[in-house]
Amino acid sequence: MIVLAVIIGFALVIGVLALLYAAWLSYQVVKSPAGTPKMQEISKAIQEGANAFLMRQYKTLLPIVVVLLAVIGYFIHTHMAIAFLVGVVSSALAGYIGMQVSVRGNVRVAEAAKKGLAPALALAFKGGAVTGMALVGLGLIGMGGLYYIFGDLVPLIGYGFGASLISLFARVGGGIYTKAADVGADLVGKIEAGIPEDDPRNPAVIADNVGDNVGDCAGMAADVFESFVVTVIAAMLLGTASGLFFVELPLFVAGLGVLASILGSIFVRLGKDRHIMKAFYKGIAVTALLMLIGAYAYLSNVPDGIGWFIAVAVGVAITGLIFWITEYYTAKEFAPVKNVAEAARTGAGTNLIQGLAVGMQSTALPALLIIAGIIISFLAGGLYGVALAAAAMLSLSGIIIAVDSYGPITDNAGGIAEMSRMPDKVRKVTDELDAVGNTTKATTKGFAITGAALGALALFVAFAEETRLESVNLLEPAVVVGLFVGALLPFLFSSMLMTAVGRAAFEIVQEVRRQFKEIKGLMQGKARADYARCVDISTKTALRELALPGIMAVATPLLVGFLFGAPALAGLLAGAIASGFLLALTMSNAGAAWDNAKKLIEGGLYGGKGSDAHKAAVVGDTVGDPLKDTAGPALNALIKVVNTVSLVFAELILGYTLGLLG
Amino acid sequence: MIVLAVIIGFALVIGVLALLYAAWLSYQVVKSPAGTPKMQEISKAIQEGANAFLMRQYKTLLPIVVVLLAVIGYFIHTHMAIAFLVGVVSSALAGYIGMQVSVRGNVRVAEAAKKGLAPALALAFKGGAVTGMALVGLGLIGMGGLYYIFGDLVPLIGYGFGASLISLFARVGGGIYTKAADVGADLVGKIEAGIPEDDPRNPAVIADNVGDNVGDCAGMAADVFESFVVTVIAAMLLGTASGLFFVELPLFVAGLGVLASILGSIFVRLGKDRHIMKAFYKGIAVTALLMLIGAYAYLSNVPDGIGWFIAVAVGVAITGLIFWITEYYTAKEFAPVKNVAEAARTGAGTNLIQGLAVGMQSTALPALLIIAGIIISFLAGGLYGVALAAAAMLSLSGIIIAVDSYGPITDNAGGIAEMSRMPDKVRKVTDELDAVGNTTKATTKGFAITGAALGALALFVAFAEETRLESVNLLEPAVVVGLFVGALLPFLFSSMLMTAVGRAAFEIVQEVRRQFKEIKGLMQGKARADYARCVDISTKTALRELALPGIMAVATPLLVGFLFGAPALAGLLAGAIASGFLLALTMSNAGAAWDNAKKLIEGGLYGGKGSDAHKAAVVGDTVGDPLKDTAGPALNALIKVVNTVSLVFAELILGYTLGLLG
Repeated sequence: MIVLAVIIGFALVIGVLALLYAAWLSYQVVKSPAGTPKMQEISKAIQEGANAFLMRQYKTLLPIVVVLLAVIGYFIHTHMAIAFLVGVVSSALAGYIGMQVSVRGNVRVAEAAKKGLAPALALAFKGGAVTGMALVGLGLIGMGGLYYIFGDLVPLIGYGFGASLISLFARVGGGIYTKAADVGADLVGKIEAGIPEDDPRNPAVIADNVGDNVGDCAGMAADVFESFVVTVIAAMLLGTASGLFFVELPLFVAGLGVLASILGSIFVRLGKDRHIMKAFYKGIAVTALLMLIGAYAYLSNVPDGIGWFIAVAVGVAITGLIFWITEYYTAKEFAPVKNVAEAARTGAGTNLIQGLAVGMQSTALPALLIIAGIIISFLAGGLYGVALAAAAMLSLSGIIIAVDSYGPITDNAGGIAEMSRMPDKVRKVTDELDAVGNTTKATTKGFAITGAALGALALFVAFAEETRLESVNLLEPAVVVGLFVGALLPFLFSSMLMTAVGRAAFEIVQEVRRQFKEIKGLMQGKARADYARCVDISTKTALRELALPGIMAVATPLLVGFLFGAPALAGLLAGAIASGFLLALTMSNAGAAWDNAKKLIEGGLYGGKGSDAHKAAVVGDTVGDPLKDTAGPALNALIKVVNTVSLVFAELILGYTLGLLG
Repeated sequence: MIVLAVIIGFALVIGVLALLYAAWLSYQVVKSPAGTPKMQEISKAIQEGANAFLMRQYKTLLPIVVVLLAVIGYFIHTHMAIAFLVGVVSSALAGYIGMQVSVRGNVRVAEAAKKGLAPALALAFKGGAVTGMALVGLGLIGMGGLYYIFGDLVPLIGYGFGASLISLFARVGGGIYTKAADVGADLVGKIEAGIPEDDPRNPAVIADNVGDNVGDCAGMAADVFESFVVTVIAAMLLGTASGLFFVELPLFVAGLGVLASILGSIFVRLGKDRHIMKAFYKGIAVTALLMLIGAYAYLSNVPDGIGWFIAVAVGVAITGLIFWITEYYTAKEFAPVKNVAEAARTGAGTNLIQGLAVGMQSTALPALLIIAGIIISFLAGGLYGVALAAAAMLSLSGIIIAVDSYGPITDNAGGIAEMSRMPDKVRKVTDELDAVGNTTKATTKGFAITGAALGALALFVAFAEETRLESVNLLEPAVVVGLFVGALLPFLFSSMLMTAVGRAAFEIVQEVRRQFKEIKGLMQGKARADYARCVDISTKTALRELALPGIMAVATPLLVGFLFGAPALAGLLAGAIASGFLLALTMSNAGAAWDNAKKLIEGGLYGGKGSDAHKAAVVGDTVGDPLKDTAGPALNALIKVVNTVSLVFAELILGYTLGLLG
């Protein structure tokens, strides 16, 4: 037990270190100058809106958590119930901390932009790093602490399920919120009233900015937090059969990745070429290198350690390559986006077809990457090796989320600069930061989707292990039924979210129209819009629309499990992972390609703004928005929650299934 | 062997009967008056175009067929090679016969429309029924004859593969052809030159009308011919282990279905309410009823026959329900299409999102229907019961294809009426016929997709049987790798076809522009357009663009099989079926919903033609076209060809696989 205590101690120490680092970064952000009273007023409104959403979300969650706590505690195990609660609180806390810093960082980045690109970038990345580090720090402490207290791994499944629940809420609710506010603000503001984006006269403008934080910061954080912890836990569970070393190793790898992320993040600094993306890549590269060095140093001294090292290296390589692949399909510099832009010349129809084709095509390389990763890590270390590779990949979450959360901060900074009418020089800086934020948003999404798929695969194997399944045989009709149901879920789920965004946006549209009509002097800038109402409507509708897909995600695996048994449920999990992964990539990358094709044209291509090509590209962007920011990312949460709910209820399903078709 | 000989005899007799019936119907069609010389001239051009396409397709196929014949004959078995050739010829012949009657029926239906709706409908349906009956007749004769000659079932796998090959060519090549010509004609004709659809001055107008026959008639016929024969063969193969009765039963069911279709088709007659769809439903209902009566009469006298009867009834029920479900999602009368039309009021973006959402949502009921079908037929008769249900469903192909092939005939009739400037009264009749043709096109597509999925599932089980697989275990990484590759294929395949249509359409656009510019007097109606060149370009580009996706469809399963072994390949097949089925439904139904939403608006809703809502709906329709007429239907061919190629090469794969990850 001594070695185990050492590893747990290592994880806890690194976890605390990550939190201290996050606290130090927060302090740095908060102590920076917060700009003029006008800027602070806007920032305050965004803060209030974000908090209002979080609070209402937590209030909605409360009864669900209480019921699940009782069910798990009564039917399964008290320890698992406790771990579940810790998981819920940890994930919520990570999101809360990230949001608090994000909504304070935005205005300070706008202020720092007065002094130039380098200080503004440094501050924005610090703000993003708070989310990244808080998330991995809390994850390490939660996993290490619970394992230490209970001396047993099984309760940690509850921890993962808690993280899943928050992730489902944050991804689905946040995704609907952010797009409803965005689309609602644009439809009436830009199109009907003809005022620019981020104009303070638009009553939905604050909701729109809140949405960036809710969706891109809190939603992404909860998603990746979940992937991180469930993957590490699944790998540890799989290690149980082979001995203590194999239980410790994933935790060690996780701690190592977090340590490497902390150190790597220090290297994110603008070089003389003022190339922002390069600054991020430098940080990520250093992190990856440190991770590899650390893993090699440890594993080369362990018998047969090279196999495990290869698995870790596979995880690190996947992270690097998925960035590269996603950037190829979604950035303006490469053929796919250029082709989508060119297709806009012949109208919206061809633009849309080309974008859809790019989205579908963009699934191939990531799928082949995962397949190659599975093959190599399996040859190196069996199924455990596959899970270890996944854990290694997700251990880099700290630096990746730092890069991702930088996005909403700069997006907001741009909005604040616009709303408070700061000089053009400042807006040029925030625009430059924001453009990179759009790229990182797309590329980190590739990481999140791949991470979710690998995490879900690890959970799938852990589920088979927990239910002592020797085979999930596709020649049994129950398994085929499960496979079909599982493959269907992402289609149905996406469809629900796409229509939900439409309904929610419609309510915002009506409210904005009402305010334009009823608030006198609003359009002349003499009266203030009622921002809070739009925030409130977005919040309410997002949480309302979350109910049905949420229930479907949790209830379907249980239904299939209790009706047809564990093999059918395993089939469902496999089907959901395969189809969910491919659909999520299609929707996210198509959306990003349309978005950037539009930006290419706005940059002057094919007639620039106002041209027919631009009008066509705007349609593509509109269609892409709910795909890339709502439905696509929500599938990450879906494919994991079906797995965690199955793991939590595994024993009950084994005991009480009707075993139809068995 | 006596009973077997009786059943084979029964199949052969019914097969000959179906062909005689088809010949009699052809005679009826051809002897009808063919209209004015002007009309005949147009019809002649369409005939020539269709024949040019078929001939070039056959020429392209020839070397491929010769190579495959040699490979199968040398490496596998001469009998299988012979059966392969028979399959190729039968499917090609079915398509050829159907096309010949279809391109002669079109002008005669236009002429008959002078006398009113009832005679025009009767003639159009007769023309469609030729395709339907020729197809099932040739199928029965092929299967029964080969089985009788070889006294062995295994060679029949080659027959199925031959049908697969033609289906791949017809669906992919035909799909690209039809949309390239359609989009090309519309883009320059309707939008740039401002001339109406089917205007004889448009050089692509004949290619467009040829496309309807090539895609909707020949493509659909080859697809369903393939589903029909592979499903019956797979069910017979599965029966081998249990005894001769189980080998005969699928052939008996197939014969019964064909007989019922012949009789049922007689009941397709316009009632006093002049409701065309009802006339079709009457025919289908009579067919289904006769099928059930016949099956019950036979199986109630067989020990344990009720189980097999239930399986047959499941197949019949699926046919009925899939019609009903598809109509709900794609017809103008119901909420989904109405919602898509309503979404057009707020622009193309919302129209597209709503259509995509409808497409994705429309996968749920068909998937649940298949699942319910699998469960019931499995409980009634094990895996064999599932295959028997599928065979029963596909046995109704005769009447379904009759209803489907009616569509391109009436579509062409409308075009000929327009081009030869027939009186409004006639065009009102052809419009009415054509409107129903659009509905049946969508609903029979639902049948084709579901049939393809069930047929592929039966092949999948047969593959496992032939390779003596006891388990296709999703806990083995090789199977997971296969599953991912399989699920990926339909995404990649669709993406290729979508961009192929764009490229092919672009070449038509350039040619039409060239003719408008260079042929003097064309726009004034004084000079004749060079239709043949557009037909030629469509043909060439369609067959060129077919190469890459075609090779991928055939090579990928072989690659996975030889690298990773039979279980991995089985995983691939399952993944391709699940994701292909769902994607095909999404694309076909979304496309049909956009199409009919546009027609709803053209009917006067939300401002009618020329309104903003209409413009938005036109964009949706443009996007939907390649989805519903190219990519979606081609997936039917894909998910079957991966299965038939695997079955043909099963023994070789077993013998020579590297068995990586094994």
